[in-house]
Amino acid sequence: MPDATPAPGRRPAGAAVLREEVTGAIAQAALAELAEVGYTRMSMEAVARRAGVGKAAIYRRWPSKEPMVLDVVRDLANQTVPLPDTGTLRTDVAGFVQHTSALRADLRAVRILTDLTAEATRNPRLAEAMRATAEEPRRAAAGQLLHRAVERGELPADLDIELATDCLVGLAYLRPRTPWQPAERLDPDTTARLVGVTLAALAACRR
Amino acid sequence: MPDATPAPGRRPAGAAVLREEVTGAIAQAALAELAEVGYTRMSMEAVARRAGVGKAAIYRRWPSKEPMVLDVVRDLANQTVPLPDTGTLRTDVAGFVQHTSALRADLRAVRILTDLTAEATRNPRLAEAMRATAEEPRRAAAGQLLHRAVERGELPADLDIELATDCLVGLAYLRPRTPWQPAERLDPDTTARLVGVTLAALAACRR
Repeated sequence: MPDATPAPGRRPAGAAVLREEVTGAIAQAALAELAEVGYTRMSMEAVARRAGVGKAAIYRRWPSKEPMVLDVVRDLANQTVPLPDTGTLRTDVAGFVQHTSALRADLRAVRILTDLTAEATRNPRLAEAMRATAEEPRRAAAGQLLHRAVERGELPADLDIELATDCLVGLAYLRPRTPWQPAERLDPDTTARLVGVTLAALAACRR
Repeated sequence: MPDATPAPGRRPAGAAVLREEVTGAIAQAALAELAEVGYTRMSMEAVARRAGVGKAAIYRRWPSKEPMVLDVVRDLANQTVPLPDTGTLRTDVAGFVQHTSALRADLRAVRILTDLTAEATRNPRLAEAMRATAEEPRRAAAGQLLHRAVERGELPADLDIELATDCLVGLAYLRPRTPWQPAERLDPDTTARLVGVTLAALAACRR
């Protein structure tokens, strides 16, 4: 897949024209390699081969493995578990719980995330990069979700947003319960009850 | 460390005499190897060398790597995060939160557990063995803790023990918040507030 044809749309000043379908093919190849061999053993050669591009096409986009992985994993997280804005706290939390459940049921995503989590305990630079590019923006978005609920009077005015974010994330991700394996998707009844419990926990997160 | 000297205490019928200090040295060596190279790359040779024993001393205790790892990791989990029985739900939950916080601050334990979690997504036999030997007994103990609270009237009689166990575990382990890195131990104020939130969530876990 050559980058020769200019892509439509905005062209960043000073940047080469990068075809979006090539970027997408590389991202998909990177995710497949991450799931199959893990972060440590994945090579740019293997990603290029799987994507059907030359290594230069990758290096035009990312200088090395780490920023490439961070980009594709952040996109995976944002696409799979968007933070909803539906107008009420209950439906926002229900959407978050459902998206999280879908992520937990996705074997490829679970493999990638658990592999990177393990790698990050040995690689402080990767840990810091994951915190800054994946975790903090998502926590900020969760904080917005909670802040809107406070403004609507659905949560106490003295809500501790940090603690409440921990509760929202902790309850959604640790259920269903097997961290060792991808989990089945939650049924509607379990989802509704987990949402109720999460709302009770959030209401108790006061300063 | 030879196994020659009989250990004091009960001798299982048909079993060779196994010196406890040798077992302990092997377990410590296995944990160190797990933390350093991970489950996939760890070898019985390296464990034996680190423990200062012959490989035969290991094989007298465990037939292969998998049951050895399961035994030492189960002991690590039970020793680091015991499930308290203090007479009240609040102090039980506080103890659990404090022990969990200590585990999350232990880089070696975090490395081992995240590595095994990642490995289990690729190895269904290991996943099932971890579920059966490490997770289920601990969930059963957490269920007992909650059941005692129901009997004392501290939680509703129609408590959903499974959902409540998920909440107890989810809230304790996802806080502090960085799954990518070992976390600092919780200060007393944060611990007290997290205990309050957990009690509110548990009270909402009704059938």
